[in-house]
Formats: sequence, C-alpha cells, structure tokens
Amino acid sequence: MRNIKVELEYDGSEFCGWQWQPNGRSVQGVLQDAAEALLQQLTNVVGAGRTDAGVHALGQVAHFKTASDLDLRAIRLGLNSYLPADVRVLGASEVDDRFHARFSAISRTYRYVVSTTMRAIARQYTWFCKYKLDVDKIQIASEFLTGTHCFATFSKRSATEEHYLCDLKEIRWELHDGSLVMEVTANRFLHNMVRIIVGTMVDVGRGKLGPDGVRDMLNSGDKSRVGSTAPPHGLFLVRVNYP
Amino acid sequence: MRNIKVELEYDGSEFCGWQWQPNGRSVQGVLQDAAEALLQQLTNVVGAGRTDAGVHALGQVAHFKTASDLDLRAIRLGLNSYLPADVRVLGASEVDDRFHARFSAISRTYRYVVSTTMRAIARQYTWFCKYKLDVDKIQIASEFLTGTHCFATFSKRSATEEHYLCDLKEIRWELHDGSLVMEVTANRFLHNMVRIIVGTMVDVGRGKLGPDGVRDMLNSGDKSRVGSTAPPHGLFLVRVNYP
Repeated sequence: MRNIKVELEYDGSEFCGWQWQPNGRSVQGVLQDAAEALLQQLTNVVGAGRTDAGVHALGQVAHFKTASDLDLRAIRLGLNSYLPADVRVLGASEVDDRFHARFSAISRTYRYVVSTTMRAIARQYTWFCKYKLDVDKIQIASEFLTGTHCFATFSKRSATEEHYLCDLKEIRWELHDGSLVMEVTANRFLHNMVRIIVGTMVDVGRGKLGPDGVRDMLNSGDKSRVGSTAPPHGLFLVRVNYP
Repeated sequence: MRNIKVELEYDGSEFCGWQWQPNGRSVQGVLQDAAEALLQQLTNVVGAGRTDAGVHALGQVAHFKTASDLDLRAIRLGLNSYLPADVRVLGASEVDDRFHARFSAISRTYRYVVSTTMRAIARQYTWFCKYKLDVDKIQIASEFLTGTHCFATFSKRSATEEHYLCDLKEIRWELHDGSLVMEVTANRFLHNMVRIIVGTMVDVGRGKLGPDGVRDMLNSGDKSRVGSTAPPHGLFLVRVNYP
C-alpha cells in the first residue's frame, strides 16, 4: 500500500467541521467520497487537525493509504474533479509508510482575522468586533502565553484530554488592511483554544480585562474561569509543520 | 430637502444587481427599504453605476433626498442597522443640491481579479482561469485600449446607447498573491465592458488572440466581433470619482 499525503484548502462555512459525522457535511466525508470515486475503494482519510464547524483551512494536511498506482498529479486533479468547490487539494505526495498526518506533526499554525470595521465583502472570513481595541495591551498580554503552560482555562471542557500542557511557540498580532490578524504556533491546540485566546485578547484590547488578568487566568488553572470564545468563521488552519 | 451622499460596499453574490427589479433582490431595493424604515418616508436612492448581478462594490456611491433632520452618523448607523449583512454604508455626507451620484461623476474605477490556481477560500470573489497566461502580452494588448475609442466591440448590444465612445484613462495589471488583478478607470463604461475587456485579455494571455487582434477589434467597430465575457463574480466597482 502506498501512503499519500495531501495538502488541502477549504472554506469551512458550509461544513460541520473536519470530522466525519453521520448526519453532517464534513470535510473528511467529502474527501473520503472523492477518494472512493477516484480510487474505487473505501478510503480512510486521516487529518492533522480536527477543525470545528465554520473554521477554514489554507493548509490542512491529511494522509490515506491506497493500492492504486495512479500518479500523484492524477490523484490531485482527480480528487479535485470529484470534490465540491469549497475544498481543493493543493498538492499530493508519496510519503514514508510511517508518516501520520496527525501524530507526525510537531506543530500547527493558526491565523485569526478580527475586523474593526463591519464589512460586506469577505465577511465570512473575519470576525467583526465592534469595540475599539488597544493593540499594545493585546501584545503585552499575548506574551504571557508563550512557552509551556497548562492551558486549561483556554480550552473547552473535555473528558478526553489527559493534560492541558501546550508549548506555545509564537504568537503575533499585526494590523493588516484594517484588520487585526493573529498568528499562533504551538505543538498542540486544545478544543477551542485559538478561539478562546482571541476572545480573551479582545477582552484585553477593549479594556474589560487587564494584561495581568491573562497571566492570572493561565496560572489559576481554574476551569470555571474560561475566557470568551471568538466565533469560528475568522479562524484558519494555516499550516501543519513536520520535522 | 437635504441631499445625502452615501458610500457603499456590497457583496454582489446574492443580488440581481444594483437596479431595482420587481421580482429580484437588488442593492437599490434593499437600500430603499432600509431608508424607508429609517426615515419613515419613501426614498428614491440613485446610484452612480448599475452593477450587474454578481458584481461586487467596494466604493459604490449613491444619493437620496430627505426631509429628515437625522444627523449623518445616525443615518449611516441607522441604514446599516436595517440593511442585510451583504451591504454596508461606509460613509454618509450632506452634499450640494446639484450633486447627482451618476451625472456628477467624472470617472469610475473597476477591479477584476483573475486567479490562476483554483481556490476554495474567497472563490466567490475571483474568476479561476485554467490557462497559463502571458502577462507581458496582456500588458501590451491593454495599451491599445487607453485613450478615447469607440468601444462597440467591447460592449453588449444595447438599444439605448447613443454612442460607444469612452475615454479609458488607465488600465493596469498586477500579479498579487497568486492572482492577476486588473484596475481600469474610464469616464464611462458600457454594458459588460469591463468583463469583455478581461475576457479578451485572457484570450490574449493564453495565446488565442494576438495583441494586434485587440487593436483590430477596437478599430473595426464590428459589433459581431464582440470579445469573450469574463464572469461577474471577479468584478468590483472600486470607486466613483467626482471633480
């Protein structure tokens, strides 16, 4: 069996998220359908990260096994011909049998776009925030998050997590064309973690929470103090990083 | 009566175009409904340019007369509160009684975005062109269009046009983030003119038509030789210019 790695872009607006669901339109589901149509075999497509409903991807990574001898260009074009317009395969490559889209990844990078003016164009790709935001305060508060911490107060409750330790490698905020764009890289992300980071930082930027409050939230480990959660449609999985 | 000028952004995807239609969802229609709700009077909203179905605007201009003494900020916020999310009023100002959004304009600037990679994100704002395009040839051919010419071969047949003379002041093509972006400014635009310019230039870029063929089309005035028409969803009315 060959092991095929694909890089994907998708518009999350009309999806119930990455993961296959019996009654929802998932990215994994439409990919598996396209792979089955192209390769004429049931195909299990494994993604690097389970993006939520409404979350977009510029560089999601997935892998699947196949006995097909189709060349890589034909796999990319063939999958795209069967996929709906809101998912595109950007590239396909053959990888070592041990490669696993999720477990081989060493980090992931997400982007979140906050807009401070209410827009009509591209409104499905940005969160309009009606408050005036102090970017300097957001920068200061973000610094507390870098490094290895317990991010329990920055995640949705989950029964399946063994621990909440994440190594947050980098977080940057930039003003770009009237939008405030955050990029964050970590070895792993907990459920809703990026959206809670953004919601909390917007609370800081509008003066509802001091930068020190972020440090306290992080140190308290008190799950009842979970921060505000930004909506999904401003969030993009930008890339998955491998060794 | 006060004369109010508004600047508008809209996503044309779900509109039958600017102009009011009895059975269609038009930008003019939703604006007039919002104005009526806010000002409690029937309001005729006059636009600078009649964008077609699917065409977007970053800076459409319109004007309307009102007896209301609402201040300008309240007019902007009030209209936005009644408007659907795909139309936004960016600004409102009070203008001289003689100002007319359409007849006072001296030129308009349109943008068209051609993408050479098939994208999932923002696919509703760009035309995916599957051909490899020679940008140098497109630049050369575009030069023939600048200046005052009869643009009959660059417009959809229309019984209402008295003449087809347009003064095309500037046309530029730029590669930007994997897309080929055209901006064009002229004193007036004929029906479908920008989309036919783009369709024709893509024919040049893919080698189906030589740059000289564009000059011949322009000089022939032969309406049976109308060029290819690019789809509406890559087109934006960027701004309307006044003295």
